Amino acid sequence: MKKIEHLGIAVKNLEEANKLYSQLLNEEPYKEEGVESEGVITSFFKAGESKIELLAATNPESPIAKFIEKKGEGIHHIAFAVDDIEKEIKELKEKGFQVLNETPKKGADNKRVAFLHPKSSHGVLVELCEEIKI
Amino acid sequence: MKKIEHLGIAVKNLEEANKLYSQLLNEEPYKEEGVESEGVITSFFKAGESKIELLAATNPESPIAKFIEKKGEGIHHIAFAVDDIEKEIKELKEKGFQVLNETPKKGADNKRVAFLHPKSSHGVLVELCEEIKI
Repeated sequence: MKKIEHLGIAVKNLEEANKLYSQLLNEEPYKEEGVESEGVITSFFKAGESKIELLAATNPESPIAKFIEKKGEGIHHIAFAVDDIEKEIKELKEKGFQVLNETPKKGADNKRVAFLHPKSSHGVLVELCEEIKI
Repeated sequence: MKKIEHLGIAVKNLEEANKLYSQLLNEEPYKEEGVESEGVITSFFKAGESKIELLAATNPESPIAKFIEKKGEGIHHIAFAVDDIEKEIKELKEKGFQVLNETPKKGADNKRVAFLHPKSSHGVLVELCEEIKI
């Protein structure tokens, strides 16, 4: 893993959370983006070489809606940058990690992503992120 | 805020978690350190300009023991690096954030730290970290 690419935070109301995190981080979000397949709307803040991603549900079936229902608002996942996501998935599976997406899927912010099951990493939902080269 | 200084992950067993995170991050922890006043033992991994801090309780009254009892293992807090912690505390209080430590306390890894109450930041326990200059 190269660095923390971003930290995902589940929030109920994106507009309110944007205001609060702008106050906390002393800067505005640099973009908002929906991921329709996941039922989320996201916003991104820069934090050094990493980002803070706020995620709000756009429908009650969204994984973010279910997370908030179960655990309340809070840190949802940590994403690590990787150079070759297929290679990482293969290696992590061999090491015994439970990979939720054998084939990477399209994530927000121009990334190919895959998740590891929290059960195989001490309760932490881990995302692997590979930047899509254009 | 300058960058994500570290991400704190609450674990039940530090030795087991060290093994697993060494596999995940492809590196060993660079140090272990106890913070007696908090009832925790910690280990640190490098992740780009940030760190991953694993925290295990050393007694049942530790905040980490209570966190795990309530929520299970998982991401416990996010720490941001600041240059002047007293100035940040003052400014965040003026903005309406609930600061848990009006006077910074000594944290692990040679830091002066203060926490913000999760209720004032959408369920996220935020730590401010100032490096102690020697």
